[in-house]
Amino acid sequence: MGDYRELWKSLDMDLDKHDQLCAVLPEMFGSVYLSQENRPEGMNYFNFVFSEVHGLRIKELNDHKSNGGKVLGTFCVFVPDEVILAANAISVGLCAGSQFWVEDGEKHLPRNMCPLIKAAVGAKVSGTCPYFQSCDMIIGETTCDGKKKAWEILEDFVPVHVMDLPQMKRNKDYAMWMDEIKLFIDKVEELTGNKVTVEALKAAIKVCNNKRRALKRLYDLRKFTPSPISGLDSLLISQIAFNDDPVRFTEQLNALCDELDERVKAAQGEGKKRIMITGTPMAIPNWKLHTIIEGLPAEVVVEETCTGTRYFENEVSEEGETIEDLITNLADRYLGINCACFTPNTGRIDDILRYVEEYKVDGVVYSNLSFCHSYAVEYKKVEEALKKAGIPVINIETDYSSEDAGQIKTRVEAFLEMI
Amino acid sequence: MGDYRELWKSLDMDLDKHDQLCAVLPEMFGSVYLSQENRPEGMNYFNFVFSEVHGLRIKELNDHKSNGGKVLGTFCVFVPDEVILAANAISVGLCAGSQFWVEDGEKHLPRNMCPLIKAAVGAKVSGTCPYFQSCDMIIGETTCDGKKKAWEILEDFVPVHVMDLPQMKRNKDYAMWMDEIKLFIDKVEELTGNKVTVEALKAAIKVCNNKRRALKRLYDLRKFTPSPISGLDSLLISQIAFNDDPVRFTEQLNALCDELDERVKAAQGEGKKRIMITGTPMAIPNWKLHTIIEGLPAEVVVEETCTGTRYFENEVSEEGETIEDLITNLADRYLGINCACFTPNTGRIDDILRYVEEYKVDGVVYSNLSFCHSYAVEYKKVEEALKKAGIPVINIETDYSSEDAGQIKTRVEAFLEMI
Ligand code: SF4
Ligand code: SF4
Ligand code: SF4
Ligand code: SF4
Repeated sequence: MGDYRELWKSLDMDLDKHDQLCAVLPEMFGSVYLSQENRPEGMNYFNFVFSEVHGLRIKELNDHKSNGGKVLGTFCVFVPDEVILAANAISVGLCAGSQFWVEDGEKHLPRNMCPLIKAAVGAKVSGTCPYFQSCDMIIGETTCDGKKKAWEILEDFVPVHVMDLPQMKRNKDYAMWMDEIKLFIDKVEELTGNKVTVEALKAAIKVCNNKRRALKRLYDLRKFTPSPISGLDSLLISQIAFNDDPVRFTEQLNALCDELDERVKAAQGEGKKRIMITGTPMAIPNWKLHTIIEGLPAEVVVEETCTGTRYFENEVSEEGETIEDLITNLADRYLGINCACFTPNTGRIDDILRYVEEYKVDGVVYSNLSFCHSYAVEYKKVEEALKKAGIPVINIETDYSSEDAGQIKTRVEAFLEMI
Repeated sequence: MGDYRELWKSLDMDLDKHDQLCAVLPEMFGSVYLSQENRPEGMNYFNFVFSEVHGLRIKELNDHKSNGGKVLGTFCVFVPDEVILAANAISVGLCAGSQFWVEDGEKHLPRNMCPLIKAAVGAKVSGTCPYFQSCDMIIGETTCDGKKKAWEILEDFVPVHVMDLPQMKRNKDYAMWMDEIKLFIDKVEELTGNKVTVEALKAAIKVCNNKRRALKRLYDLRKFTPSPISGLDSLLISQIAFNDDPVRFTEQLNALCDELDERVKAAQGEGKKRIMITGTPMAIPNWKLHTIIEGLPAEVVVEETCTGTRYFENEVSEEGETIEDLITNLADRYLGINCACFTPNTGRIDDILRYVEEYKVDGVVYSNLSFCHSYAVEYKKVEEALKKAGIPVINIETDYSSEDAGQIKTRVEAFLEMI
């Protein structure tokens, strides 16, 4: 990695503390990722992106800012990136996946809260996340109690705009969501000084759809037995999707998929037990559950999560001649996401049952970040549906600490034996 | 108490388990309430209501049902009782305040959730709450993640209608809330077969406003030093307000207030340290914090909670000639409630600071049911505001169990010494 200390300094970062983070990440990445056998060549790009995650990409963001561009941070797959791109701004995902930030988050938030929220707040208040430091504004949403109230805390540190996501999916909620997208467009236009034109929005929709298609292509390849790529590698790609340049990312992912096409043709053998993970998002560098599962004789073949299918399923229609049309298209696609924050959320169960078939899943790991009520309560209904379909399921509630890793391993081991 | 076993049986209750509850409640009431010294005569009515809480009132509900009337259960002060009354139905509050129901709730919900939700679900699934058993329908709302998802569980046991409360208070959210009230009216009309006419709704608004005025009168009397009534007794009155006949309740409360007027005139002395409780609701029979505080040399003089000021502050305007007018009035009053489920919720801090003055508060106890994220996160802002105003505040997070009572007592004792 190049020397970025001057850059980090200009971002008002806590350099000493940040050094601690930089000291552990490469080692962690090495032991989790580089130790895998027989990885596709195409993963080199993603390895490189990760090795430069606090370097080159941050430089790109700040070059963009020097040219008058803006950077916006998001925390949820409901915030439409298309709008940000259309205003010539860059969108970065700020969901934080490391225990490193939790302690600082707990200085401002209760301890018994979702680690993702604590880590995100901790990353900002400690000044150790260069993405957060590069953001001109963050876009919150009202998807869960914890995040909804955390924006009020973060507002003291960075400008915040909150999108009010409806909690149901009735017709009037679609109208309400379109209205929120309009307000979001107004905000982004105001911040960037750029108009979100029909042409720009259409172009942005295309860019995002291409990214979705590439991810879908990757996931379709995972449907083969054995899967031509590990769950860990797929997860890394999904995580990088939130921060990388979307056009470059799509190119590189398609190149990888070309290689995987060849692998599939040459593939032999039965593969390992095929696991679906369903639940809450896994923000970078949260590789905990995948590491445990793939350290046993099993492979993760699909994630029904926001760092999985929820991020790329369903495209935004590119038809339409007016901003209104395009906003309708955006609302349609985005409200098609089945997050537990909705009531009811039966669409998620349909998705899970469909993926069981499509990905030939042997067992389901329900993955829940501690204290996430929405997903925790929804487990009951998912369990019922899977039991009815004869698919084994195990419920794992965990946070970012490593303390429970041994215990989870024992449980998953027993679960795999039972399948 | 009379013999209500036949009635309970007709409500499909678990009689044996219910007997266990009936065995402990009177004793608990005796030790917490009847042991207080120098109580007002007017409390006899409320003692009686409590002693018949599973008897006489349940008989009234079921006589009403025998005459073709309906009973609706609610869980939040945002659900407008006026609509229920206007359709000649009875509204009962179902928030549950006893550890007795938690274990059964945990069979259907995660353990690390707000005890109020676990107890409410437990009360239904165990068939031990005659109010729940008497309900033709329950009205949920989307105020917090836990409740929002719990309705999906309860739906398997009882018909549910969910009102989608907005999460902000912009103009468009008022319009949205009016729309939800309209949908609620439709639902109630459908269930009861009665039309919610302008006359009936106006009359219901009057009934509810009279109840609010009586409660406000009680609270105004608590502003005197010393307060003419204990915090415990006031809390019981507030709790009974959710289930008693509103007209009778108002009469009896006004009679009590007449007596308190006399007490105030005759009163002497300085009184004890004056405490405000602010936070989450205290459903019957949750008297835990009041018991601890008033067992020390202190008195609770005001509750900024939903079993306190949030329930009665601000009246619904009685002006207007159309249903639209009255719905506007309802929306205005109800969205004036400052619950932590909104973002932002600065109105609550204004309320708290105003009550500090009005009730001559010496110290504030922030009372938070375990795992209630909205109120837990909001503590930070409330603490900041109170510190700035020079008012001591202590944060108590607790559930319905009695295990931490000793520890809380020690903390509150130290807090009182510090004031
Ligand atoms: S789980 Fe729900 S709230 Fe969280 S990022 Fe995904 S869509 Fe957003
Ligand atoms: S995992 Fe759950 S609690 Fe955490 S941010 Fe997402 S929705 Fe909120
Ligand atoms: S605290 Fe909020 S959600 Fe709970 S009863 Fe009160 S208003 Fe409703
Ligand atoms: S106390 Fe909090 S978590 Fe419990 S029901 Fe009320 S708003 Fe929900």
